[in-house]
Amino acid sequence: VTSANEIRNVKLCLLGFGHVTQRFCEIVADRSQELAERHRLRLLVTAVGTGRHGSLTHSVGIPPGSVLERFHEGVPGFDGRQIAATTLISESGADVLVESTPLEHGGTAAISHLECAFDSGLDVITVNKGPIAWAYERMRTYARERSRRLRFEGITMDGCPVYNLAEFCLPGDRITSFRGVLNSTTNYALDAMATGASLDQAIGEAQAQGIAESDPSHDVEGHDAAAKVAALANVLLGADITPDSVGRDSIRGLTPDDVSSVISEGRRLRVVCSAAITHDNRVAAQVSLEPLTRDDPLYSISGTSSALILQAELAGTIEIVERDGLLTQTAYAVYSDLLTLFVQR
Amino acid sequence: VTSANEIRNVKLCLLGFGHVTQRFCEIVADRSQELAERHRLRLLVTAVGTGRHGSLTHSVGIPPGSVLERFHEGVPGFDGRQIAATTLISESGADVLVESTPLEHGGTAAISHLECAFDSGLDVITVNKGPIAWAYERMRTYARERSRRLRFEGITMDGCPVYNLAEFCLPGDRITSFRGVLNSTTNYALDAMATGASLDQAIGEAQAQGIAESDPSHDVEGHDAAAKVAALANVLLGADITPDSVGRDSIRGLTPDDVSSVISEGRRLRVVCSAAITHDNRVAAQVSLEPLTRDDPLYSISGTSSALILQAELAGTIEIVERDGLLTQTAYAVYSDLLTLFVQR
Repeated sequence: VTSANEIRNVKLCLLGFGHVTQRFCEIVADRSQELAERHRLRLLVTAVGTGRHGSLTHSVGIPPGSVLERFHEGVPGFDGRQIAATTLISESGADVLVESTPLEHGGTAAISHLECAFDSGLDVITVNKGPIAWAYERMRTYARERSRRLRFEGITMDGCPVYNLAEFCLPGDRITSFRGVLNSTTNYALDAMATGASLDQAIGEAQAQGIAESDPSHDVEGHDAAAKVAALANVLLGADITPDSVGRDSIRGLTPDDVSSVISEGRRLRVVCSAAITHDNRVAAQVSLEPLTRDDPLYSISGTSSALILQAELAGTIEIVERDGLLTQTAYAVYSDLLTLFVQR
Repeated sequence: VTSANEIRNVKLCLLGFGHVTQRFCEIVADRSQELAERHRLRLLVTAVGTGRHGSLTHSVGIPPGSVLERFHEGVPGFDGRQIAATTLISESGADVLVESTPLEHGGTAAISHLECAFDSGLDVITVNKGPIAWAYERMRTYARERSRRLRFEGITMDGCPVYNLAEFCLPGDRITSFRGVLNSTTNYALDAMATGASLDQAIGEAQAQGIAESDPSHDVEGHDAAAKVAALANVLLGADITPDSVGRDSIRGLTPDDVSSVISEGRRLRVVCSAAITHDNRVAAQVSLEPLTRDDPLYSISGTSSALILQAELAGTIEIVERDGLLTQTAYAVYSDLLTLFVQR
């Protein structure tokens, strides 16, 4: 066995252990043989921090499938101790932090997790959009100064390539604007209201489907969409903005009659996320409730589908659509980011 | 000036000098400062082979903008001598062959150009889909055995990422099928026939718009689409097929009434390119004339737009659309491939 053929252990610190991270562990467990044989990688978990189920630490590291077993079956490991996130990260001995704690206004906690990871020699994969929406330039500089890497494909369109598309597939080009439909809860609510449901009923249905959070105000008032716009504008357009500077429409107060009257005109309401580099080289960004005509590429984006239209100087107009994104797609973004970091091309 | 900051000369052999390659030269001329300052690259042309205007050779290499001048203004250089392609390539001293000769059945000439380039130590960028459609596995092996590289982003959807998307943005995933609308001439013809034009009139209009070739049979009979299907199937699905094994519908014989009757049913005819890995691990591929319903993502693809729907095991359903592709987009594919080859990430 030559050294080029040796299997490399990559150790993970999982901060946040919700549905996405659990599904990610299943994907890794399903593909451990392919990871070893084809990519010469073995993924091991040395630390897990959960919101309410305590922490797990293991200095050697255990396979992600074993983490799931311990989590679901009460195998000793998640012992109820809540180790502080920064302690967990800095003592994890891991190569990568997978940050998936809940998004909060300002992104403060997640930003501190990323800084701690970079200080401790870890690369970072985040599915929490806070650090990119609120402090991308700062995070990028912080990572670069410590020769660490930061990836975040899953923060906007689940597993559908957005940031990697721009970074790896549009070299030498310049994106000048984008326009997209990126929030499932409002998609779902607007469609349900078209059949006569009130906003509250629609949100209730979305919650029952697992689409909306228990507190839906974040989606309804456009905060989630604004964070996505800020992240996209920061990364794709080189803006240095926060969600607070993104103009924002709320669908609160919208009635089924409002929705129906737009439909009677042959159009459909959608929450549209957009930003553009202006002629004076600034970035204008907004989340707006728009009645779309049938020939608009965003008209057909419903439920958990999402779409983004990029305008680039040389590549022209490129549209990317994720049709019916589910948990697996978001979890794949983490898996994809890991391979981007550790597989030689 | 440290060596890392030195500007690297990359020498090009341009085989074929039609609209795409000329536009590529304009793009490089427009961006020579950015290429030098940001990417530390200087592109120089050491050889050009045209179909009817003779050849140009220059051992030191001249900027692409100067090649255009010599071509358009009769500055000495294109001297009417037709140097044999393989001689031109092997004596070019270039780093990269840009192959853009016309597609021919079997791809024989282009394949020999690629083999000659790899034998002579050149990497290859091809916008001629022949080698990928007819002999991808052979070309890939041939290049790898000589430590050379082969790129071909422009052969299917102009400058819209397809092959780079699959290679760089879907690591660890497996594409199981695709379905797309990829031929502008038939798009254009089917739309013109919907307004009452005959196929011949429609093709005449497409030729006047610069969309259809002077011999449109290649498009009308589905050969161009079949070559695209074979290329996509070979690269994305790991098939080892040729265009001859792609089932193929022709629009020859279609009348305006045929087109109108589909429209009266609320549908629209499109030439659909598709392939899938079957349950016995073979690849079934076809070009078929299909009446699409309005809720089909391919329904809206008209004129020079194109679209591809990928089905992947983990990333799910991803659609990519190039809206209104023009010459600049295809030329950008060559530029993009060059940066993929020579810019460090």
